[in-house]
Amino acid sequence: MQIGIDLGATAIKAGLVDNGKIVEKLEILTKPKRGYDSVKSDIIKLIDELKLKSQEQIEYVGIGIPGIATPEGDRVIICVNLGWNNVPLGVDIKEKTKLPVFIGNDATVAGIAENMYGSTKGHKNALFITIGTGVGGGIIINGKVHSGSNGIGSEIGHMIIGENFYNCNCGKNGCLETFSSATAMTKYTQKIIKEGYDTLILEKVKGNIENINAKIIFDCAKDGDKVANMVVNRMVKYLSIGISNLIDCIDPSIIALGGGVSKAGDYLLDKIKKQLPKYLTFESLVKAEILIAELGNDAGIMGAANLGKYI
Amino acid sequence: MQIGIDLGATAIKAGLVDNGKIVEKLEILTKPKRGYDSVKSDIIKLIDELKLKSQEQIEYVGIGIPGIATPEGDRVIICVNLGWNNVPLGVDIKEKTKLPVFIGNDATVAGIAENMYGSTKGHKNALFITIGTGVGGGIIINGKVHSGSNGIGSEIGHMIIGENFYNCNCGKNGCLETFSSATAMTKYTQKIIKEGYDTLILEKVKGNIENINAKIIFDCAKDGDKVANMVVNRMVKYLSIGISNLIDCIDPSIIALGGGVSKAGDYLLDKIKKQLPKYLTFESLVKAEILIAELGNDAGIMGAANLGKYI
Repeated sequence: MQIGIDLGATAIKAGLVDNGKIVEKLEILTKPKRGYDSVKSDIIKLIDELKLKSQEQIEYVGIGIPGIATPEGDRVIICVNLGWNNVPLGVDIKEKTKLPVFIGNDATVAGIAENMYGSTKGHKNALFITIGTGVGGGIIINGKVHSGSNGIGSEIGHMIIGENFYNCNCGKNGCLETFSSATAMTKYTQKIIKEGYDTLILEKVKGNIENINAKIIFDCAKDGDKVANMVVNRMVKYLSIGISNLIDCIDPSIIALGGGVSKAGDYLLDKIKKQLPKYLTFESLVKAEILIAELGNDAGIMGAANLGKYI
Repeated sequence: MQIGIDLGATAIKAGLVDNGKIVEKLEILTKPKRGYDSVKSDIIKLIDELKLKSQEQIEYVGIGIPGIATPEGDRVIICVNLGWNNVPLGVDIKEKTKLPVFIGNDATVAGIAENMYGSTKGHKNALFITIGTGVGGGIIINGKVHSGSNGIGSEIGHMIIGENFYNCNCGKNGCLETFSSATAMTKYTQKIIKEGYDTLILEKVKGNIENINAKIIFDCAKDGDKVANMVVNRMVKYLSIGISNLIDCIDPSIIALGGGVSKAGDYLLDKIKKQLPKYLTFESLVKAEILIAELGNDAGIMGAANLGKYI
């Protein structure tokens, strides 16, 4: 029996997990502006509540965070969306609950859930790529999470793969996520519309380019819109470069795509499978299957509850 | 007691290794044009000769190759310089010598030697980058070699990091080694000389740009030559991007630079240390030390002899 916590900027979801099943689930709003102490106290309350509901001893607490933790899981180094900078979340929760605590990045935790119950099950070297506002990664090597020596070992969205017309949030230029995230697709569409291209996308957002999003772009691409296809093809090109770079470094046996953009499903997958071979160094040697991740909303709790098995 | 074999396109070096020391050493010419069977027979002869010289039982044979082997070490998938394509080197040697056989890429093997006896000693997550004709990598994760699911997991020289004026040997454009290898430095120098730049380099090669090499470029850069400095700075920029990408994926605790170009030593290292922070995503979190590799010519035998401990 474990407790898994999915800590997001909007909600904190906590679950009591028994043998791969969520037997109890609680959810509250995060309200991050309250500051670290209040949020932490609420997490502890959720844990205490779940402990009371459990018939058995809790083995440990696993927490997925939208940021970076120390490899030991004692401290959160940075969580931009929560406004946290070097806070002792693991130490504090361990002290109050008397339970071992593991902390991992949310993309890593989703990658664990996929590896335990979903798309990459049975693979010891698996890569999970989440494509949404940004691009994140969960790397599993030899059946263990690889977060590196300083906890930054799966920040694949910040791999530099070219030069781009805008800088990344991180301050660098050319990061994978500035080419292949939902944000990147929107920004590039807005740019080329401003340059005078005509597109169905403009009709769909009733002329307000602020309302453009990845779903609208994919829908218009499927309808044969030229601009939308340019945007999708560019996204796919750079995502394929990013994936080929990861194959050249990590060489996983399976790659799963998750996050909002992966909802484009087979339409996206087929395009990637066509583009990727162009960028593979040893095409005939690459046997990694690429597929869409399977798990839905509970992946955060399930992955967090299994953190202890992957560390 | 192990036997380590350093199989190169020019020479085959074989050593009997006892507790980290080479107690016997043999060397013959490879003459790869003879074909696989002759070269393999010579390797077996060297192993038999070393077995006779050994007082103790040989634990295993480790072989470093200039190419890619299966993760199981039974077959060599490709060795371009030897003209080998899918040959059963491991199977054949095991059958004839009755010893377990491990096969690894030469950069991986050099990375093992550095990790056992040299610059990265004591580090469980270490990255070795060899910069010569190409750029190769040896990745150690949790104290084990990481060659991935298909044996291509350290082909870091083929990471795409931009666009370049010439294509890589592998057929792709923008590979790290087309920016940061000795070959890349030479080609870029030749290109800008042809564009009309004046440089000390031309004097040094007596007007014959075919004789330009990385050492001459570094020497001229140290003497303040503008073109040489442009070339060195460009090489350092892209090597820094490559290193930062590897930190974002693998996050090692130490990075060692080897190969011919690393002979530029502290001069090169200081430039990388100045450039790298520009490309780091989480500068304050990166604690990886970067240094020049320590071991010389025997690293191939020593690393190969230790392959069994790292697989």
